Amino acid sequence: MTLLTGMRVVEHAAFVAVPLAGMTLAQMGADVIRIDRLGGGLDAGRWPLAPSGQSLFWAGMNKGKKSVAVDTRHPEGQALVQQLVAAPGDDAGLFLTNLPARGWLDHETLCTLRDDIVSVTLKGDRHGRPQVDYTVNPALGIPHMTGPEGSRDPVAHALPAWDLIAGNMCVSALLTAERHRLRTGEGQKVELALKDVAAATMGHLGMLGDATLNPTDRTKAGNALYGAYGQDFVCADGRRIMVIGLTGRQWRGLVKATGTENAMQAMERRYGISLADEGERWRRRAEITDILRPWFAARRVREFRTEFDAAGLTWSEFRTVREALADDADLSSDNPMFDILHQPGLGTYPVPRHPATFGAADRSPAQAAPSLGAHTEEVLGDIARLTDTEIAHLFDAGIVQSESYSATRTAA
Amino acid sequence: MTLLTGMRVVEHAAFVAVPLAGMTLAQMGADVIRIDRLGGGLDAGRWPLAPSGQSLFWAGMNKGKKSVAVDTRHPEGQALVQQLVAAPGDDAGLFLTNLPARGWLDHETLCTLRDDIVSVTLKGDRHGRPQVDYTVNPALGIPHMTGPEGSRDPVAHALPAWDLIAGNMCVSALLTAERHRLRTGEGQKVELALKDVAAATMGHLGMLGDATLNPTDRTKAGNALYGAYGQDFVCADGRRIMVIGLTGRQWRGLVKATGTENAMQAMERRYGISLADEGERWRRRAEITDILRPWFAARRVREFRTEFDAAGLTWSEFRTVREALADDADLSSDNPMFDILHQPGLGTYPVPRHPATFGAADRSPAQAAPSLGAHTEEVLGDIARLTDTEIAHLFDAGIVQSESYSATRTAA
Repeated sequence: MTLLTGMRVVEHAAFVAVPLAGMTLAQMGADVIRIDRLGGGLDAGRWPLAPSGQSLFWAGMNKGKKSVAVDTRHPEGQALVQQLVAAPGDDAGLFLTNLPARGWLDHETLCTLRDDIVSVTLKGDRHGRPQVDYTVNPALGIPHMTGPEGSRDPVAHALPAWDLIAGNMCVSALLTAERHRLRTGEGQKVELALKDVAAATMGHLGMLGDATLNPTDRTKAGNALYGAYGQDFVCADGRRIMVIGLTGRQWRGLVKATGTENAMQAMERRYGISLADEGERWRRRAEITDILRPWFAARRVREFRTEFDAAGLTWSEFRTVREALADDADLSSDNPMFDILHQPGLGTYPVPRHPATFGAADRSPAQAAPSLGAHTEEVLGDIARLTDTEIAHLFDAGIVQSESYSATRTAA
Repeated sequence: MTLLTGMRVVEHAAFVAVPLAGMTLAQMGADVIRIDRLGGGLDAGRWPLAPSGQSLFWAGMNKGKKSVAVDTRHPEGQALVQQLVAAPGDDAGLFLTNLPARGWLDHETLCTLRDDIVSVTLKGDRHGRPQVDYTVNPALGIPHMTGPEGSRDPVAHALPAWDLIAGNMCVSALLTAERHRLRTGEGQKVELALKDVAAATMGHLGMLGDATLNPTDRTKAGNALYGAYGQDFVCADGRRIMVIGLTGRQWRGLVKATGTENAMQAMERRYGISLADEGERWRRRAEITDILRPWFAARRVREFRTEFDAAGLTWSEFRTVREALADDADLSSDNPMFDILHQPGLGTYPVPRHPATFGAADRSPAQAAPSLGAHTEEVLGDIARLTDTEIAHLFDAGIVQSESYSATRTAA
């Protein structure tokens, strides 16, 4: 995709959120230069790994970026990174980081080199203390809402959801700040904290209001949809499905498809309620499930799949990732979002493009991640505008490297 | 915040993702007009609810928007919505929706009224079939990675993570398309599907490569941090904490703070491994936990809190939302992100601003959500440029309403 072509972003970051932000910008066409320390950053070996031992995570988070490896402890290395961030270009001077602010890379220092820098810094919490998805999530209460009804043990999510949300928010924050610069010429420092992103999001969802105003906590509800009806059922073939009755239309469709109208109406009369009210569906979810369970227990998924789809029901089957890859065309090259790509040193597997289709730009193929330092020489010449002699000096002094990522990782 | 002041976005949507997108733009200063059908949209009563019965969810997702209530089945109502989307203004003509594409509101139809429309549409899956967070997540395998080690039952997440990610991605997609229009004058149609957002994100994290290239599935690991070390422990006071040893620095800090260097070294010798390798920490996590458990079991959190913080360890305590609100200054007005706001009809509770601080704009206070239809008359006059007579006709004919949100909900 070429929408952001010409925009240049320098990223010095690790793990999920900020690398995802840089990668997302790269997938929309920006020129994203990822700076790593020599030998690779903190996430160079992050799991999952390919059979070769190389990081599938790193490859996923750095698709389509240019990789530069620099000794960031050496004054010349630091000066080089500053030079790259502040290099000329109308659509350059954009910097993304989640590494602790240090004098040589903080916004104010960068502004002495280029006064319209836009920097986006993601911190752990607002005080600058270290926090990660795995600590923010328990501190704010989500694990106490997750898992089997009645259980008291908190269950943490497996998806680093807060990181992923924060990373996407870094993208929109950068674009908003850059839009302001396009109009006014003014750069700015943007800061956000992972914990604040999580706390704000929980506020948006009404969870903070709920715990403030209501006397009881939201409890664990297994795999039920919160606040209306939605439940998992095990079918006669042992497969587990999820069915949704969130909207009135979904609910009526589910009752009709399972032929449970009479039983539901009897329940409504018994309690003097209307299941058209989503809150009543939530309160009576156990009884609703008791009514629906025999229907699913008596049927194999293939017996109702076509009918459910034809009726426009909202439902799905529980699957492992492996089963989903084997079964679902949406995870194959049948889906134009995926390219089956060979990532050197790792293997061949479905690699996603940006999920959106933009009418004004072609959806160019997914790109592989670079090897560590693959673009060091090119970037020093083209962006930092160093002479061949200067570049040779930096390599000879060991201040930059152009080593192959695979060589580094297999040596680790 | 005023960075996007002057930008006008029309939103016709429900539930999490797209309303969150509109709200996020509103919190950055955009003028966001939410269109609902008469009586309120599909999410008008979405849980959680305030003691009054009004939706805390709706209030959270619609902060700072203008609310217009229109009979969207009536031809005049449809024409009015089209007119609002296509109304003049350099920074207008922006449309966000997650409702099924219908002729009168699809991109091509809107372009007959204004040829530079930018529309962003979120679908369920790429085929246009209905999918929600609660169905996408099981279909792609995350619940099989979530929950207690050894358990076979899939555990769905309580946080609508995919919706939240997709919503934030709608923001960056809209800003990217609008940036293109600023430069070229060209509008465009942007489409994305919730299921694709989830599938792409799992690809970015390396999960699709993992299941493609490796012979075994990623299994449930309880509350352990995947791929390195991180674990929950119950302390002597019954409190549960999470400690992280993801980076080498975090790991060394944890071992040092718990005085377990000798035991860890003995384990390294026993197996001929180095726990400096994050993969070995992951493989040996059960034995590491056995070494650390007695240390935490013998201590109350208050005995090591100060020491852990001083050592810069990455850790947190498990809490319910209620406990977090009671204990944590980050969830109070001590955090400039939060305003303790009165939301009419609901109550007084901490309401978040946008999580980012932007150097070029003040962080203006959080705004309450409107009552349904609160801005109908204003928007018809100021944006649609209708005369008082035309506005009176629409109200008299029942095509628009200006009713109070609370009146609607308590009547439901």
